[in-house]
Amino acid sequence: MEKLEALRHTCAHVLAHAVRNLYPKALPTIGPTIENGFYYDFYNLDIKEEDLSKIEAEMQKIVKADYKLKRIEKSKKDSEALIKGNKFKLELLKDLKEGEVSFYEQGDFIDLCRGGHLESTGKVKAFKLLKIAGAYWRGDAKNPQLTRIYGTAWESDKELRVHLHNLQEAEKRNHVKIGEELKLFTHFELAGKGLPIWLPKGETVKMEVEKLAVETEEKAGYLRVSTPNIAKKELFIKSGHLPYYEESMYPAMVMDDGTYYLKAMNCPLHHLIYLHEQHSYRELPIRLAEFGTCYRNELSGTLTGLLRVRSLRMNDAHIYCRKDQVESEIENVLSMIKDYFKIFNLKDYWFRLSLHDPKNKKKYIDEPENWKLAEDALRKVLKKLGMKFIEKADEAAFYGPKIDIMFKNVFGREETMSTVQLDFAAKKRFELYYIDEKGSKNNEVFVIHRAPLSTHERFMAFLIEHYAGKFPLWLSPEQVRIMTITDRNIKFAEEICKKMKDSNIRVSLDISNETISKKVRDAQLEKVNYMITIGDKEVDNKTLAVRTREGKVSFGIKLDDFISQLKKEIQSRA
Amino acid sequence: MEKLEALRHTCAHVLAHAVRNLYPKALPTIGPTIENGFYYDFYNLDIKEEDLSKIEAEMQKIVKADYKLKRIEKSKKDSEALIKGNKFKLELLKDLKEGEVSFYEQGDFIDLCRGGHLESTGKVKAFKLLKIAGAYWRGDAKNPQLTRIYGTAWESDKELRVHLHNLQEAEKRNHVKIGEELKLFTHFELAGKGLPIWLPKGETVKMEVEKLAVETEEKAGYLRVSTPNIAKKELFIKSGHLPYYEESMYPAMVMDDGTYYLKAMNCPLHHLIYLHEQHSYRELPIRLAEFGTCYRNELSGTLTGLLRVRSLRMNDAHIYCRKDQVESEIENVLSMIKDYFKIFNLKDYWFRLSLHDPKNKKKYIDEPENWKLAEDALRKVLKKLGMKFIEKADEAAFYGPKIDIMFKNVFGREETMSTVQLDFAAKKRFELYYIDEKGSKNNEVFVIHRAPLSTHERFMAFLIEHYAGKFPLWLSPEQVRIMTITDRNIKFAEEICKKMKDSNIRVSLDISNETISKKVRDAQLEKVNYMITIGDKEVDNKTLAVRTREGKVSFGIKLDDFISQLKKEIQSRA
Repeated sequence: MEKLEALRHTCAHVLAHAVRNLYPKALPTIGPTIENGFYYDFYNLDIKEEDLSKIEAEMQKIVKADYKLKRIEKSKKDSEALIKGNKFKLELLKDLKEGEVSFYEQGDFIDLCRGGHLESTGKVKAFKLLKIAGAYWRGDAKNPQLTRIYGTAWESDKELRVHLHNLQEAEKRNHVKIGEELKLFTHFELAGKGLPIWLPKGETVKMEVEKLAVETEEKAGYLRVSTPNIAKKELFIKSGHLPYYEESMYPAMVMDDGTYYLKAMNCPLHHLIYLHEQHSYRELPIRLAEFGTCYRNELSGTLTGLLRVRSLRMNDAHIYCRKDQVESEIENVLSMIKDYFKIFNLKDYWFRLSLHDPKNKKKYIDEPENWKLAEDALRKVLKKLGMKFIEKADEAAFYGPKIDIMFKNVFGREETMSTVQLDFAAKKRFELYYIDEKGSKNNEVFVIHRAPLSTHERFMAFLIEHYAGKFPLWLSPEQVRIMTITDRNIKFAEEICKKMKDSNIRVSLDISNETISKKVRDAQLEKVNYMITIGDKEVDNKTLAVRTREGKVSFGIKLDDFISQLKKEIQSRA
Repeated sequence: MEKLEALRHTCAHVLAHAVRNLYPKALPTIGPTIENGFYYDFYNLDIKEEDLSKIEAEMQKIVKADYKLKRIEKSKKDSEALIKGNKFKLELLKDLKEGEVSFYEQGDFIDLCRGGHLESTGKVKAFKLLKIAGAYWRGDAKNPQLTRIYGTAWESDKELRVHLHNLQEAEKRNHVKIGEELKLFTHFELAGKGLPIWLPKGETVKMEVEKLAVETEEKAGYLRVSTPNIAKKELFIKSGHLPYYEESMYPAMVMDDGTYYLKAMNCPLHHLIYLHEQHSYRELPIRLAEFGTCYRNELSGTLTGLLRVRSLRMNDAHIYCRKDQVESEIENVLSMIKDYFKIFNLKDYWFRLSLHDPKNKKKYIDEPENWKLAEDALRKVLKKLGMKFIEKADEAAFYGPKIDIMFKNVFGREETMSTVQLDFAAKKRFELYYIDEKGSKNNEVFVIHRAPLSTHERFMAFLIEHYAGKFPLWLSPEQVRIMTITDRNIKFAEEICKKMKDSNIRVSLDISNETISKKVRDAQLEKVNYMITIGDKEVDNKTLAVRTREGKVSFGIKLDDFISQLKKEIQSRA
């Protein structure tokens, strides 16, 4: 793995070298390795995607020249002279200590660099530049804008080919592409950035997911609530979001009775609902659930598709429980996640248990007994349920340990679907309590934050890519399309369409003048689950010809049988 | 009716006279009549509700003294001298023309007044002061704060008694009171004003109403969408909300890519969705539905309960149709309203058709043909459906005629439940079009704005008062409560509780140590629909004793029979 790192790092230098050759006015800034490749950010580089092949050709020349990579150590003063035309490198140099400054030289190109390289540029084998993107110096929108070039690099051409093929396959599943094609969601320039608009078909899928969550949570004893999208400054001060988290929140709105913010989290409002009534130990656990919409002030340049958005509708809930209920409640939550993932046929997932570091007193709330109890409970439940999990020390939240639900997306990237967090700081901040068996106030209220189905935005992106737009019947926005061969067939087609609608099946009718093969092709492109073609034979026999999305055709099906088959399939959420 | 007006107006003067006697430093400002009574606003009057009886006693003295009301006409200059200590009256005087200024004098009290009075204060018979409230001079928060005293006045003691009794009855149904008692909704000082929090029980009722709307709109061919709560300034400029409506909107939020506002309406976003695809004449009408949350910047002092709020979740939809579809679409909407009101057993409603004034060219969009077509269509449909309606000239919106749905609330006040508006201005503003039969762009897209179930807030307030908290079974947050007589009965009670839960019945279990009569009383107070008491006899016979909310008790009921009876009742939404 280290060799691959070095290869990619060297390839980034080769890229910078090539750019310098072709665009002498461009200033290299930083160029780290990333998963499967690398990028390099340049200032004053105005190029288009078309220019990447030219840069690749120049890179090949540098590889062929097989320049040695020489490490050169310099004093800070000498270094300054060497990079004096590049304010970005000068800024990087400032942060380095005397004796720590090194450069790497290849041919006539030299770059400030800590190291980790191959011996020579000739050792760089299989690479490809992938795309360009905008970026800000040090990720801050107040700084100058840079042009980022992404590339991938491998030890062999074969590995490169496999990776590019995978990328291509994944691209076909890209949720933004499928989302537009299938008219699931969109964005409007005029409405704003990072604010997805759900079109009727996407809304249908989203509503089915919500229905599943509402049903599941109802059975699991959750109580549903609704809280507003905005709340007063004072609430967020109490919760600790202000002032620490202010930069991530939307700007304040000053009203005649105080200052309001779009909420960044639902928990403060749920805590108030918990506190609205006094609870006896017998009433706990209390589980408050809400599809709450939260807002994050992300930089507009970083927003993409459904994965980086500014408004997030969360499958949120907070469980208020006693110390002796922590274990069973965590178990309930993890079981629910397991059940959900089974429904969505998701197998390649695991858990990451993030623990605290007892030595790090500043980073974590100082309740050693509760840490021990909580971490033991979480680990025990993961083992009991036979879950695949890894442990990470010193990665817990300030207020308690957490379990991240991890999976590999279609691009092969590890992603966090959502987290289950145990919180023993809220009880103090919000003075949460219950009345114990002796009739006195007990402050040991543990809060579990959980959102198994993540945010609507993230989960829908996942579902679209997971199914490549081919939703199972229960989720599908268009379950059946009825198509007529001639106008003589319209009356019968309309009859069966009405019957199916009455049975709550999402059905549409195509009576256009197109040929039947064109109609079928359209329906397939739109990923309709079942296609019914109606010709004279079907009208005469009062039966249906049913074609599945996969192309299997059955004739002579009776309508009632078909409807009950569909209903069964829908109900099973298969 | 005019006599009653005069009586109430005179009573307002008697109130001001009494206040002047008791609190010489208070300055009277204005004192108009309102439905069932009057109010008077005073500056520099610091009183509590307890003080009202003292003021009433002073008013009785003035009535007894039977002062004549003398009209005195003055020049503006002489008038100024008369009211020189009162800046509010001086401001009113400024707006009057020379020759129009009159005063009314009763005993040693004189008030600037246009007139419309009884002969003498002795003619004021039956009155009562009701409450005090805060107000701003001329309704503007930038102006000084005033104290408003509300009163009611009638021609006879009997009428007054009937009115006070009605008020008392209505007060019992007050949605704020019932809402808190039944734990339906609440407000948190820390979360902010005008932002109702839906507690689990209220959320349940709200979700049932939503379910009804989703089902109904699904059957009526509506397509559901979701749009964000915020949008860019440019959108609201295009829609015309900015700058004209800016005062009613929340403050702007400046982001890195422009200025955003919480949305005041859903329509601009729905128009963008309509425009996202090209539509053929065959596809119309397109009906886009959403429970969209809109925000209004109301003054904090004016916010009460669910009727005056800052965040409104609307049962919103916009219908995009051709000119020849206007009539049938309006008919569909009105029929839907009729069906809804039948479900909620609401009979005392009527419609108000607001028309334009052809002479008023400035106030209305200049499309005479469309006005004629639209107004004729609306009137025709109202007649066809046999709806009770009145017509109001010169009350239409700028962009088209509208139908308001009116009803009398439990307080006897006329209220607008919601409106159906026809809009032929949006097509121009948003360049709405469809492709007509000839294949060309046709701009004649008519938009119908409709929200039959109003906002969630308003409709829930209405439902709570309409049912006095006694929701029908399908809406009820707690449909059944099972209560045990002794601990021996717990096991059987738990069994039937589980079976009912599995049948999706909202059931709870009371196994506390209270007496059975206390348990029943509690359940009745919480307006549970059915109470099941389980004693030894029920356990032995495996049957239930069922008590309705109205107190009717039946013994020996079989669980399965009871469950199917409940399911039937729920499904019928009776």
